[in-house]
Amino acid sequence: MTIATQPLTLEQFLKLPETKPASEFIKTKIVQKPMPQGKHSRLQFKFCAVVNEVAEPQKIAMAFPELRCSFGGDSVIPDISVFRWERIPVSPSGIIANRFEIHPDWSIEILSPDQSQTKVLERLLHCSEHGTELGWLIEPKDESILVVFPEQRVKLLRGTAQLPILSGIALELTVEQVFSWLKL
Amino acid sequence: MTIATQPLTLEQFLKLPETKPASEFIKTKIVQKPMPQGKHSRLQFKFCAVVNEVAEPQKIAMAFPELRCSFGGDSVIPDISVFRWERIPVSPSGIIANRFEIHPDWSIEILSPDQSQTKVLERLLHCSEHGTELGWLIEPKDESILVVFPEQRVKLLRGTAQLPILSGIALELTVEQVFSWLKL
Repeated sequence: MTIATQPLTLEQFLKLPETKPASEFIKTKIVQKPMPQGKHSRLQFKFCAVVNEVAEPQKIAMAFPELRCSFGGDSVIPDISVFRWERIPVSPSGIIANRFEIHPDWSIEILSPDQSQTKVLERLLHCSEHGTELGWLIEPKDESILVVFPEQRVKLLRGTAQLPILSGIALELTVEQVFSWLKL
Repeated sequence: MTIATQPLTLEQFLKLPETKPASEFIKTKIVQKPMPQGKHSRLQFKFCAVVNEVAEPQKIAMAFPELRCSFGGDSVIPDISVFRWERIPVSPSGIIANRFEIHPDWSIEILSPDQSQTKVLERLLHCSEHGTELGWLIEPKDESILVVFPEQRVKLLRGTAQLPILSGIALELTVEQVFSWLKL
């Protein structure tokens, strides 16, 4: 949903109060995210849990759900943002910062019903153009995952296809395995 | 809509009677195209007219609406297929063939309401992987065009952005101009 169309700067946008669901700032427009539903919630949590289980103990990377990342003039909130350990912004005492003004290393979006795939892909391409190494667009309805590689190369994967993982994270996943997280 | 799921070969599929709307054969599955509506019909015709106006007199290329192209184990029917002149299959007497068993040089899909963008993008990626130089995914609802470049690189264009055209065709088009074809 587009809330406002009048030009605003990123700095002005970031001073506005947060909304629920959160709003993103894309090409000078404020767009509110859809209200997350069951499949979205489950995939989002489980993905973070699976990544953090292998990446956190060894201080390789950390996955964050619903984290605002402001860079390249836009402020996006990927459903999941994964940052390599050394890129996580911290205070001098080692506390995780509140404001992330850098691109994620791996960004993951989960398509909600009725959400425009174009607009979601646009966020992943924005990340890719600004240095994000890997993007996933998870489409539950189609049981497919569109992968965004460097230079905005894309590949659609289904079924038993092995998914590309951010390098350094010791994880092996097929598309089927990701969607099996939805089964009780 | 998926009509049948039992494995079939491309040759077996091509022997089946044509349906209306036409059916495509993708990864051993038969999928019927959506019934074209107003915007789709207009963009499809106008695109062919604009390309053929500049490309046909000089024998550079020809645009075909709803042409079945069978290659790489699939049989797809892009909304528009553009072939360079020398690649158009013809009989010894110079008559255009009925069966096109080659990839188009430029394939264009127009998203219909409720059509899965993933599935449409999958057809364009199939073309790209088999040698199609350029793909366009026109999304009327969003007034955007997702361009597929060689090696499956993608870029989303809107507004006054200049669109990439198949090399050799003397045409300049912005995204806005394409959608202006819908205005009476």
